[in-house]
Amino acid sequence: MPSRESSRFLSTEVLVENKWHRYCRDRFRQTDGSEGEYYHIDMTGACGTIPLFEDGTTVLLEVYRYVLDETLWEFPIGGMVLGDEPLDVAKRELEEEAGLVANDWQLLGRFAPYKGISNEIDWFYVARDLTWTEQNLEPSEEIKVHRMPFEEARRRLFDQPLIDGQSIVGLNLFDRFKST
Amino acid sequence: MPSRESSRFLSTEVLVENKWHRYCRDRFRQTDGSEGEYYHIDMTGACGTIPLFEDGTTVLLEVYRYVLDETLWEFPIGGMVLGDEPLDVAKRELEEEAGLVANDWQLLGRFAPYKGISNEIDWFYVARDLTWTEQNLEPSEEIKVHRMPFEEARRRLFDQPLIDGQSIVGLNLFDRFKST
Repeated sequence: MPSRESSRFLSTEVLVENKWHRYCRDRFRQTDGSEGEYYHIDMTGACGTIPLFEDGTTVLLEVYRYVLDETLWEFPIGGMVLGDEPLDVAKRELEEEAGLVANDWQLLGRFAPYKGISNEIDWFYVARDLTWTEQNLEPSEEIKVHRMPFEEARRRLFDQPLIDGQSIVGLNLFDRFKST
Repeated sequence: MPSRESSRFLSTEVLVENKWHRYCRDRFRQTDGSEGEYYHIDMTGACGTIPLFEDGTTVLLEVYRYVLDETLWEFPIGGMVLGDEPLDVAKRELEEEAGLVANDWQLLGRFAPYKGISNEIDWFYVARDLTWTEQNLEPSEEIKVHRMPFEEARRRLFDQPLIDGQSIVGLNLFDRFKST
């Protein structure tokens, strides 16, 4: 819980704890010296992957997102819990959600997806030397897997009624990686 | 609360309500027919702005983000509450956070920043015909305003220890807007 590290931190109370995250209320010192309250999600992070086949194709997922009641085009991503290694989570989620295992992994970068409310850090990887295996979904997940040329994936990520922010940032980190 | 619209929705309970969002636990029907629980943030949205001066410069903010205990380079963005019009929120936040008013506004697009936990929708605008006025911060906010060439802003957004995902997506929507 990074907020504890802040010089502005006064105290915290865990209001709800579940298997995915903690929802907390902190007391903190505001810039004018007064005490404020900050409601936030305490969540270790998530790990996303851009799978890249030798022929230049990639995989996008069509994921039904319950909180938005929308099906989004996304790169595979899944949540970490405390103690998880980011690369292990990326491997696990790529296999479970996309049915893919990879021998070649490289970190593309990290970002904060939702800096106002959640301390989550997202890690994005590129995965190559890919082999198909079995998708293994949780009962809460509705995910369809689509292999396509990379430029078609880029287009689908942007040309949808509601864009998935995390996938777009992953795509940017991949473009930066390619250009170096 | 879009989850009510979902065919998977069974019931909801507001666990915490504050002036910024609601934290809820839903019961929902999973793909295997069993009941699951979904903890989520119910939050109308946020509105971000890319200010663009006639000379091609823009403004980035250096914002201390309490939940991450990090100071991030970001475009101005601020939260909506139910009933707010997105453009009104963008105008208010640009003035309060950056001390800027603009006569020319165009919508760049919308995205979901945090689709797993929050139903927030982010709206991004480009604002032109700009005039400086007074910054007007809340006691919870620590924000420094920096005007710079657009390409320097792009570099700063990417070349920081922790990248702000929402600003990167805003930048992508701006690039798409410019190219059409």
